Amino acid sequence: MTPTITAFESSPDGGQGLARDMRVRWAFEEVGQPYDVRLVSFKEMKEPAHRALHPFGQIPTYEEGDLVLFESGAIIFHIAQHHGGLLPDDANARARAITWMFAALNTVEPPIVELEQVPYAEHDKPWYDERLPMIEDRVRVRLTELSSRLGDADWLDGAFSAGDLMMVMVLRRAEGTGLLEEHPNLLAYIARGEARPAYRRAFDAQRAVFTGKSPMRR
Amino acid sequence: MTPTITAFESSPDGGQGLARDMRVRWAFEEVGQPYDVRLVSFKEMKEPAHRALHPFGQIPTYEEGDLVLFESGAIIFHIAQHHGGLLPDDANARARAITWMFAALNTVEPPIVELEQVPYAEHDKPWYDERLPMIEDRVRVRLTELSSRLGDADWLDGAFSAGDLMMVMVLRRAEGTGLLEEHPNLLAYIARGEARPAYRRAFDAQRAVFTGKSPMRR
Repeated sequence: MTPTITAFESSPDGGQGLARDMRVRWAFEEVGQPYDVRLVSFKEMKEPAHRALHPFGQIPTYEEGDLVLFESGAIIFHIAQHHGGLLPDDANARARAITWMFAALNTVEPPIVELEQVPYAEHDKPWYDERLPMIEDRVRVRLTELSSRLGDADWLDGAFSAGDLMMVMVLRRAEGTGLLEEHPNLLAYIARGEARPAYRRAFDAQRAVFTGKSPMRR
Repeated sequence: MTPTITAFESSPDGGQGLARDMRVRWAFEEVGQPYDVRLVSFKEMKEPAHRALHPFGQIPTYEEGDLVLFESGAIIFHIAQHHGGLLPDDANARARAITWMFAALNTVEPPIVELEQVPYAEHDKPWYDERLPMIEDRVRVRLTELSSRLGDADWLDGAFSAGDLMMVMVLRRAEGTGLLEEHPNLLAYIARGEARPAYRRAFDAQRAVFTGKSPMRR
């Protein structure tokens, strides 16, 4: 059965691939699992029908028969559990790859999301110019720590895994802040992720929604 | 082999059980797995020896033979994978329970942590009185959505799971803000978690570190 995910009908980022459906599309492409996409408007996301799938009124969701999931981390983990290619077979290496998924989502992403929100939520506040550098510093701490751990390795722990997929996508949300440029190894890490054929296919598919060059069904 | 976790040598919360080792202790207690605890100082957490275990210089870590993990979500998932009692056997129910783990960590916890940090980081700023309610509103949105989904159920999806364990611990971090009191069903949900014998044992063990009534090794 082909699973169906949801994605934004109109993209906040104009198809730059920063919305969380991109992560799930990339995971599908890595494992070679076809998928359908149902687009939802911002209004629909907050309505009862969508909230029945996603209690927090967001995208992506995942539907496959009777199973409904939400949260990009959980969806990607589910895909990785049922297909080879995203998590190592070795039990310890697998546990470490899962650790990086959680690290991306719970330790690295929150300050980056905060930094992303500040220009929208506080740009007209008198404190904006003073608070922005405070948040940049919080992101900087995490990027420095991550850069230090990555060193000159290609991926965070051996072969490419769902942990790298998630971390690359989380780091991409810091694009445009100038902070990634302080760590050439992180820029190269992101570039390695973006160079993967599965990434390219996923990126083109999500962008096509906004350029009108693709049907909804892949 | 008995796994070893790390916890704060001196508690920022004086043993209220809000540090992230409490989640892991609770998981161990639910499945009946003995564990050792190594206490680390704030200084030690940022030194190379600890960063070799945890690249972001935090607690908890998990060591079991050659395996080293960090991130409370990943550690609890690892425990749940190797012992019964924290995740359902049914594949779909299991995937949904994992979804709630990610939802707790990536959707509910970040605004609560932000709300927790503001009094420390910004209490002396002129904007404090205006910004605090903005963050409270972000937490309020998530609590309202969660309360609506929980309804009058005991747990988020059928039987108690690692998803509930994580959500209860994340919600507890909002204690003292007055926001939980807006949702009696969330207060009752937290109370159900705290009433579990495994929770009590874990809570007493972490508190004993700070009252000096317990050896480090359990």
